[in-house]
Amino acid sequence: MSDKTLTSAGFYVSAEAFVPTDNPVPTPSAPPPEIVRCAYMEIVVTDLAASRAFYVDVLDLVVTEESDDAIYLRTTEEFIHHNVVLRPGPVAAVAVFAYRVQSPAELDKAVAFYSELGCRVERRKDGFTQGIGDAVRVEDPLGFPIEFFYEVAHVERLAWRYDLHTAGALVRLDHFNQVTPDVPRATRFMQDLGFRVTEDIQDEHQTVYAAWMRRKSTVHDTAMTGGEGPRMHHIAFATHEKHNILYICDKLGSLRLSDHIERGPGRHGVSNAFYLYLRDPDGHRIEIYTQDYYTGDPDNPVVTWDVHDNQRRDWWGNAVVPSWYTEASLVLDLDGKPQPVAPRTDRSEMAVTIGADGFSYTRKSDKDDSSEYKLGNQL
Amino acid sequence: MSDKTLTSAGFYVSAEAFVPTDNPVPTPSAPPPEIVRCAYMEIVVTDLAASRAFYVDVLDLVVTEESDDAIYLRTTEEFIHHNVVLRPGPVAAVAVFAYRVQSPAELDKAVAFYSELGCRVERRKDGFTQGIGDAVRVEDPLGFPIEFFYEVAHVERLAWRYDLHTAGALVRLDHFNQVTPDVPRATRFMQDLGFRVTEDIQDEHQTVYAAWMRRKSTVHDTAMTGGEGPRMHHIAFATHEKHNILYICDKLGSLRLSDHIERGPGRHGVSNAFYLYLRDPDGHRIEIYTQDYYTGDPDNPVVTWDVHDNQRRDWWGNAVVPSWYTEASLVLDLDGKPQPVAPRTDRSEMAVTIGADGFSYTRKSDKDDSSEYKLGNQL
Amino acid sequence: MSDKTLTSAGFYVSAEAFVPTDNPVPTPSAPPPEIVRCAYMEIVVTDLAASRAFYVDVLDLVVTEESDDAIYLRTTEEFIHHNVVLRPGPVAAVAVFAYRVQSPAELDKAVAFYSELGCRVERRKDGFTQGIGDAVRVEDPLGFPIEFFYEVAHVERLAWRYDLHTAGALVRLDHFNQVTPDVPRATRFMQDLGFRVTEDIQDEHQTVYAAWMRRKSTVHDTAMTGGEGPRMHHIAFATHEKHNILYICDKLGSLRLSDHIERGPGRHGVSNAFYLYLRDPDGHRIEIYTQDYYTGDPDNPVVTWDVHDNQRRDWWGNAVVPSWYTEASLVLDLDGKPQPVAPRTDRSEMAVTIGADGFSYTRKSDKDDSSEYKLGNQL
Amino acid sequence: MSDKTLTSAGFYVSAEAFVPTDNPVPTPSAPPPEIVRCAYMEIVVTDLAASRAFYVDVLDLVVTEESDDAIYLRTTEEFIHHNVVLRPGPVAAVAVFAYRVQSPAELDKAVAFYSELGCRVERRKDGFTQGIGDAVRVEDPLGFPIEFFYEVAHVERLAWRYDLHTAGALVRLDHFNQVTPDVPRATRFMQDLGFRVTEDIQDEHQTVYAAWMRRKSTVHDTAMTGGEGPRMHHIAFATHEKHNILYICDKLGSLRLSDHIERGPGRHGVSNAFYLYLRDPDGHRIEIYTQDYYTGDPDNPVVTWDVHDNQRRDWWGNAVVPSWYTEASLVLDLDGKPQPVAPRTDRSEMAVTIGADGFSYTRKSDKDDSSEYKLGNQL
Repeated sequence: MSDKTLTSAGFYVSAEAFVPTDNPVPTPSAPPPEIVRCAYMEIVVTDLAASRAFYVDVLDLVVTEESDDAIYLRTTEEFIHHNVVLRPGPVAAVAVFAYRVQSPAELDKAVAFYSELGCRVERRKDGFTQGIGDAVRVEDPLGFPIEFFYEVAHVERLAWRYDLHTAGALVRLDHFNQVTPDVPRATRFMQDLGFRVTEDIQDEHQTVYAAWMRRKSTVHDTAMTGGEGPRMHHIAFATHEKHNILYICDKLGSLRLSDHIERGPGRHGVSNAFYLYLRDPDGHRIEIYTQDYYTGDPDNPVVTWDVHDNQRRDWWGNAVVPSWYTEASLVLDLDGKPQPVAPRTDRSEMAVTIGADGFSYTRKSDKDDSSEYKLGNQL
Repeated sequence: MSDKTLTSAGFYVSAEAFVPTDNPVPTPSAPPPEIVRCAYMEIVVTDLAASRAFYVDVLDLVVTEESDDAIYLRTTEEFIHHNVVLRPGPVAAVAVFAYRVQSPAELDKAVAFYSELGCRVERRKDGFTQGIGDAVRVEDPLGFPIEFFYEVAHVERLAWRYDLHTAGALVRLDHFNQVTPDVPRATRFMQDLGFRVTEDIQDEHQTVYAAWMRRKSTVHDTAMTGGEGPRMHHIAFATHEKHNILYICDKLGSLRLSDHIERGPGRHGVSNAFYLYLRDPDGHRIEIYTQDYYTGDPDNPVVTWDVHDNQRRDWWGNAVVPSWYTEASLVLDLDGKPQPVAPRTDRSEMAVTIGADGFSYTRKSDKDDSSEYKLGNQL
Repeated sequence: MSDKTLTSAGFYVSAEAFVPTDNPVPTPSAPPPEIVRCAYMEIVVTDLAASRAFYVDVLDLVVTEESDDAIYLRTTEEFIHHNVVLRPGPVAAVAVFAYRVQSPAELDKAVAFYSELGCRVERRKDGFTQGIGDAVRVEDPLGFPIEFFYEVAHVERLAWRYDLHTAGALVRLDHFNQVTPDVPRATRFMQDLGFRVTEDIQDEHQTVYAAWMRRKSTVHDTAMTGGEGPRMHHIAFATHEKHNILYICDKLGSLRLSDHIERGPGRHGVSNAFYLYLRDPDGHRIEIYTQDYYTGDPDNPVVTWDVHDNQRRDWWGNAVVPSWYTEASLVLDLDGKPQPVAPRTDRSEMAVTIGADGFSYTRKSDKDDSSEYKLGNQL
Repeated sequence: MSDKTLTSAGFYVSAEAFVPTDNPVPTPSAPPPEIVRCAYMEIVVTDLAASRAFYVDVLDLVVTEESDDAIYLRTTEEFIHHNVVLRPGPVAAVAVFAYRVQSPAELDKAVAFYSELGCRVERRKDGFTQGIGDAVRVEDPLGFPIEFFYEVAHVERLAWRYDLHTAGALVRLDHFNQVTPDVPRATRFMQDLGFRVTEDIQDEHQTVYAAWMRRKSTVHDTAMTGGEGPRMHHIAFATHEKHNILYICDKLGSLRLSDHIERGPGRHGVSNAFYLYLRDPDGHRIEIYTQDYYTGDPDNPVVTWDVHDNQRRDWWGNAVVPSWYTEASLVLDLDGKPQPVAPRTDRSEMAVTIGADGFSYTRKSDKDDSSEYKLGNQL
């Protein structure tokens, strides 16, 4: 990381640049659609009632509308129709990652951009789900099902309706996280699509283990995590404060559902946010997240973490559970069939660090971290 | 407000439109510069040591650099050189409201835009303050001194340096607030400059008492408050959580400086943020602010509050102290002389509501609010 | 306050002593009952349904049992049957302040103690309310209806049932507050009853405006506030954290019930607790309170505040609303008739300070506080 | 647990009783001293400067006085001279667990009580440490060094000095925790000393793995943890809110000292408190703790947890790190020599549960918890 500046906090900063990759997706000549933000995810679940109990009764997402075929959910500060669609199906998977674009005209750009890449593209003037108008769905070059839309029904933003908020209120959809075998290839493609890189994890050989990228002015609208893919790693919702996240844990304990807690709560190194990872009844991973930082300036510094920095994924050095690295949700093609999964092409973050396990350092200067009290060192 | 939709929370929403005004600033044919966000304020103080004690020792802003002539301060998550410049002078005033633009080329646009309006424009390749390069300052048509810049020195973002954060850490510059005699005229001009309106306060005669407008995806980068102007109403910094704001109050009490607390803490109706207003040693007003909502979608609904809604400025119906309506800081012209102040052209919010005083309603349906326990009803 | 030690925070500390009074209640030769803590209050309300809506639907107290004649409510961490009884009646008033004693045998002591004072005493083996066994009620020498009991039905402590907790959960009954014309007389009587003084407010003439006293190891189980009495000033419930109290304000705003907020939220000088005062549908005052300090040591220092210290009742110097000084609830005799109210015998705190109004000081050294921005100075 | 009542939260409650033990310490005929609360711990450290850096610069305990021989530390709300004495020595150990008693006369009772048991007893009229007067130290029947004192220098309670508080301020000493081979024997002895049992962990064979007991009205002043002993498991300090504990973690990350975090943060099942365990430079364990519940009623229900309940030690089911079960600090005899350590006599909690590892249950009804995402299930 000789071209980067070491900060006093232990990570590196540098100016954003196109990510080098030896296996690039071609850059289309057509301009990409102007994306505003991640907007919703359509999730296939195997037992709609069980999922409703989790997303509505436990997580307290707001039901915009529901039927036997689908439940449309939103966060308390959302004014568009939904942030999540739950749809019953035979195989738990993600049907689409949906982004809102800046204007109706961006849909034509999306069609041209992906068509030039030879991707399968489908457009429906009346939308693919309730509440959405003209929309384009594609199977992107990385194998993910992506939707772009502008037209959407407005619903009441319940930000001021504190009487309806629970102690763990989810206020915003924050981001998606995708698993892909070749992170530089995927990240470079997303840069072509207009995403800005904010943070990444690398090793001394410039192996990139994960990268975070944004359209709105937060750390990310999506991230690329290295692993067998294409798969969906998680969908993240924001709370206002940290105690809201702790309450969700407390409530899961009270309901004797604490085994839905997979990792955390903790403080991320990457993003500086406070986090919690849950697993829904089908194993789909949900992050609850709060308090990352503003990234909207054009020259926002890119933060690079050393994969051997024990605080990169948990600032407190707490262990990353293996399933967090290995498990993820299948994604569907536009016919609703699961996309085949390809293996990781580069080295695995878990293999080189095994969580917070003593193959990483807390203080880079230390020869020997054997004195530490972490679980990874004790197993 | 017959053209607007009443929400269940008591305010109205509508689609954004150009604000009607019978006294518009002409719309230039030149395009406006693309503004990223409010970036810093240069504040003239009469006793630099006393101001340093307040901004650095009490509010814990980070000193980027300082001399006898100026102190450059930033928030903990900032990576540009400064968010505040304190400069000693004979008259307490605001020397400039500075915005960051999207690229160096925007400065040419700023020159053309304001020149067409006949405004005084000054450009310095080496900047007007430390840490800033090429910059343009103007006296805008509303009488405010405004700076635009792109080039700026990067400094370390201290977001991860919790060891340096106090319990009241100010993490971001959030917004400015300006006092102007004619709010629709000012707001319409800001729309021409590329700002988006997010909220306003009106009465049944469409008198506009205040309006909030944004470039970044928060409720505002600046607001226009009706009153004698041009003056600076306040500069606002964000904390992560509400307890950080309460701590600032607690600390002021411990230092026997509680008389610097002018209003709050409380919950705004407008913006839904938690707030506190302080006055610095010269009387410059500072807001501490947290947890408004995302506004970045192109069709973000505009929120309109009834000036007679007792919860519009404090969701808990607590009184607005008269000085908050009447007092504000002078602003300087580009020669450093105070701009003359013109009187409010429309009706005064204080005159029609007198804070939370019983001339307003808590429940619109109530004929008589005389049973309430608010200070305004008891004086 | 020449015999007291001035602290760096601006108040005084001294060793606890019997409070001097020129009009004492005789000290009985019989020992007082050993009181454990304040336990419940029986409150007469004029509209039981309206009160239920407030205490249960707004404040989220837990219903232990209810009928047309009474609603029994408890806090989330309580294991005895109730902390509040709401009972319908023609006049809003307090029927009893109830204390739990250390053992069944303490009831005999209570009978002897009050009988020696010539007070009216009534004992019921089956209790005066549901859930309580053997109990003694008295009209005490200050005119207040007081109950002592040991036997009580146990109910489930819902501390771990986070799924049932709202964001403003009330976890404990903390204290009562009584209005009495002669504070030293009342305080000295309470000392004879075994209470320990923790804090008081005095002036330079040793006029005592209010005193706080405890049995359990918090700042108080009850306080004596100077004014027309006997009356009930407030009943206070504890939350875990400050944000829980802010949420209650937010929720009241959402329900368009913000006029139930009388004073605060704020930080007390006395007790150092974070507070909020509400008024129920009958005007009974309720405090929500959190984070005072441990007082259980036998030599816990008594804190004395100067009545002219502007931060004594609000550490941030925010104004005390006049109704908070003047309004309070009637109390009943054992026949259920309102006790007549006698006027304040000493000077009134409001008269000498008028809230946070400039007749008080923020910094004792200041000749002139006229520069401050407080509402009191602006009206 | 057939004699206990199962609650809706999954644990059991029962009336307090003397703990049965087949190997009791004889009950003295002399009455025990009346203990007020745990008051301070004297800790021997091998590098006083390193320990000062941890306790003062990282944990922000207040220095009452210090020399080359000792550092006297207190919490922000303490008014007695110290809660911790750090003293340099060749072997890291605990020199004394000190309790405050109700009056000077209690010291005579302490001498008689322990003398009757044949324990070594030492009394010093001028105290064993700075700031303490007449004091008695004993080697108790369980092998622990215990001090009793009443006389102590008062220092300023800094509760109101928010300007001195950091975001992780430790406000009170909360409790000690001791490791002992035979928990029922130790608990029964503590009952004879006047302690009240509040919670314990048992299995279906009535094996007691740990017990919590109190003098003040919190869940404990000390606890007995089963294991090789006598050893000191931890000393615990309270914060006001949960975010204060999270801040301590964040700060440790910033200082690259996250390897001092051993376990947590998390929510205890036992005590319902929010917690964090740290290890100091010598490996002494420190708990940071907030928000347990009031226990001061004479019939406070005893809570019993099933050792197989996965949420007993962490309500969120997160794993207990092995070192937390196995490591602890030596304790000294009155000559300053380490007490020999005897092995656990009963079954080991770690052996029967291995943390949160799938040998325990989240829902008792589940045959198979194999679907859960906990680290214990993945290693």
